[in-house]
Amino acid sequence: MPDLYQELVSLAESDMYPLHMPGHKRNLESTPMKGAFRCDITEIDGYDNLHDADGIILEAQKRANKLYGAEETFFLINGSTCGILSAVSAAVNDGGRILAARGSHRSFYNAAYLKNLKIKYLPYRYNSKYGIPETYGAEDVEQLIDSDIEAVFITSPTYEGKCSDIKGIAKVCHEHGIPLIVDAAHGAHFGLADNTGIPANAVAQGADIVIHSVHKTLPSMTQTALLHVQGKLVDRTRLRRFLAIYQSSSPSYVLMSSIDLCMKYIEENGEEFASKLVKYRNRINDAARECRYIQVPGMDEIPDAAKVLIYVKNAAMTGKQLYDILREEYKLQLEMAGEKYALAIISGWDTGEGIDRFISAIKEIDSGISECGSKSSEDEEVKVIPLPEVKLSLKEAWDAEKESTSIQAAIGQISGEFINLYPPGIPLIIPGERFSEELVKEIAKYLAEGLNVQGLANRKDVICVKQK
Amino acid sequence: MPDLYQELVSLAESDMYPLHMPGHKRNLESTPMKGAFRCDITEIDGYDNLHDADGIILEAQKRANKLYGAEETFFLINGSTCGILSAVSAAVNDGGRILAARGSHRSFYNAAYLKNLKIKYLPYRYNSKYGIPETYGAEDVEQLIDSDIEAVFITSPTYEGKCSDIKGIAKVCHEHGIPLIVDAAHGAHFGLADNTGIPANAVAQGADIVIHSVHKTLPSMTQTALLHVQGKLVDRTRLRRFLAIYQSSSPSYVLMSSIDLCMKYIEENGEEFASKLVKYRNRINDAARECRYIQVPGMDEIPDAAKVLIYVKNAAMTGKQLYDILREEYKLQLEMAGEKYALAIISGWDTGEGIDRFISAIKEIDSGISECGSKSSEDEEVKVIPLPEVKLSLKEAWDAEKESTSIQAAIGQISGEFINLYPPGIPLIIPGERFSEELVKEIAKYLAEGLNVQGLANRKDVICVKQK
Repeated sequence: MPDLYQELVSLAESDMYPLHMPGHKRNLESTPMKGAFRCDITEIDGYDNLHDADGIILEAQKRANKLYGAEETFFLINGSTCGILSAVSAAVNDGGRILAARGSHRSFYNAAYLKNLKIKYLPYRYNSKYGIPETYGAEDVEQLIDSDIEAVFITSPTYEGKCSDIKGIAKVCHEHGIPLIVDAAHGAHFGLADNTGIPANAVAQGADIVIHSVHKTLPSMTQTALLHVQGKLVDRTRLRRFLAIYQSSSPSYVLMSSIDLCMKYIEENGEEFASKLVKYRNRINDAARECRYIQVPGMDEIPDAAKVLIYVKNAAMTGKQLYDILREEYKLQLEMAGEKYALAIISGWDTGEGIDRFISAIKEIDSGISECGSKSSEDEEVKVIPLPEVKLSLKEAWDAEKESTSIQAAIGQISGEFINLYPPGIPLIIPGERFSEELVKEIAKYLAEGLNVQGLANRKDVICVKQK
Repeated sequence: MPDLYQELVSLAESDMYPLHMPGHKRNLESTPMKGAFRCDITEIDGYDNLHDADGIILEAQKRANKLYGAEETFFLINGSTCGILSAVSAAVNDGGRILAARGSHRSFYNAAYLKNLKIKYLPYRYNSKYGIPETYGAEDVEQLIDSDIEAVFITSPTYEGKCSDIKGIAKVCHEHGIPLIVDAAHGAHFGLADNTGIPANAVAQGADIVIHSVHKTLPSMTQTALLHVQGKLVDRTRLRRFLAIYQSSSPSYVLMSSIDLCMKYIEENGEEFASKLVKYRNRINDAARECRYIQVPGMDEIPDAAKVLIYVKNAAMTGKQLYDILREEYKLQLEMAGEKYALAIISGWDTGEGIDRFISAIKEIDSGISECGSKSSEDEEVKVIPLPEVKLSLKEAWDAEKESTSIQAAIGQISGEFINLYPPGIPLIIPGERFSEELVKEIAKYLAEGLNVQGLANRKDVICVKQK
């Protein structure tokens, strides 16, 4: 059976002339974007409709579904963002209560804003060796779940490749009759091949809704994603409604066919893709073992094979310095820099030559580090970070009249904005929460150190709910 | 200065190796989608961030802005849909009241649902010769505007190419201190060249927010759009917030660069693009004047040059029959079929050969029509279509518990769903409105005639708010 891309190529090669949108009319002579324009159409006869799929798009969604094994799978052309908005909107009532991790993606907070939700947080635990957030077990959820909670929202794997116990958490949720939504934006490659050491997929582990970015770790175009749903805890009619609300009524066939090509590729070559990925990860890990200062945690610590966390011990170099050297001197563009590490994302479509360049660079940088770093504590330590007191709902505060004030004068006031330290990007405070003296000191310290604190007015003042 | 696409090509041609998302790693050997994958990146150094633009994306937005002349212009990668959601969400308070046309796009109703708005309708006038909705003058808005109304929402041009008096309506809105939002999804090509007869752009006519699909009538990829804002009546901070909510946090650089390439092309070749479009439209109009049954309204009736409405007089053939013949016998794929017409969209990127094929087909079909049609009234007549009584807000009803019932039993009940007759796709009833006896008869008639009535259960029953 032809995939969506083949269907579009057939059309492009046929004699059919377009007297419809898009305005570029597949006129390849006029554009340098030939590959993209050639297959870019609107909903014409025989090409189905994403928002009411019953033809070739439904078939494509079924192919993706077979790969992951949920009851139903939807293509998303507005990224995992629209999947998270739709999942939370469908699973929780207006004004309801949801249990979630503090490190949830911004789209989770946006959904909570749109639905005026109350958020109950799982303990915010932080691995202070690497400077990355920790993940959750069933007992964390069990301890906090109560009869008010309408759904649980977990991110697994995290951006940095750590995984929660989705199977255990799903069991706890189901015992309480509520759905588990897993933001697995970074985990579309999980569970697609056996015996690779890559963790199981959240769908197989029993989550009710799983959102996968297809572009992050699999070979599909940016902004493409999947939403999988199973079980009876989420109303499918409501879910479809929100998917139609949060996605364009003119969805791109280029993006959709990119998802389908990717699914077909993984169906046929998933084992090879996964084993190549793990081989690359192991080669990097092996090479790093010979380094003096650079460490790359193995899959025992960072189980997501796609995430290569390059940590420099003894603080011999900051994550940003490492990232900049890799970029400027070695022409290796990494995904991000943390305080103590630089993070690379690899996939089964990396080239051996690219990975070799990466390994050589790591070795060369390591051998150039002189014994100058301050010996910081290398013990892995998990800190629990206290969260600010909630005074107003996110919606009440974000919609309220606001004023900006110096950071010192904010103590005791209610925040009217999100403030994030980037990285790691997890909110220090969100609208509706109270500035404590400790938090104000902490933010002032980050500013004094010149760190990237986002959500301030003029890069120095905080935005508060206007006092009456 | 390089455009966004050139920046992406430079990167693709450089030695920089991607250790970041997307997972396809620009590995062109592995994909048939070479053109698209080559320029598909994530937010890396130097490539800016759509949601906080201060680099090459901001520059690209400024180029687009210069072309249209608003105060600020935003690129949209989730179509006009996200622009309409954002504009309405920013301009009207929760539970507020908005004045709008019944024929507004579904995303308008979705915004009204999300914000629990009350919709006051402009009179729903219908051109019964062609079977298309009519448009509005300043006096229509003047008569209905009152102190409760927080914004006015107008679609112009319509899908079928009719235009409202945006200048006059904007004046009325501003006299009342409220913003005018114009869904000009089909009008991105307006006002880009002088002396072509193409109407002025809604931005120049003074609307506060204008949403343009770039893909519909200009040469850009499907799902791309622009939002323009000017004046002080809409809070820009709120507008930016909603644009960030309703769009992916992983926006596609392929889509963004397609917008920028399109803007650059129009900046350099806008006159040529527009004059070609008008030349094509005139050639079609001239040819149709020699036809016996087929008529193509001129730009005096359908001022949007891009819309070619092929009407068959005396009901000698239905719109669907005409559409099917053009598609099946002539390999000409049109945009849509109405009851009495087929609609083609043309652009300055159509080829002369394509337009010739279209003209020959029209002439041939016309000459083959035998004198068999029933002589229906040909007078242009504007009917005012009564709208159902509102009993609950859209949100209350759409979120309520529901039950399906036979169409006959629905009289007096409150609808729990949108019911549309497609075409024209304008809602017959929306959630919260009461089924009258007349409406039930009308829907039953459409069903008996085998027309495409959307929003029913099992294609026959209606969905009502559950009676207590």
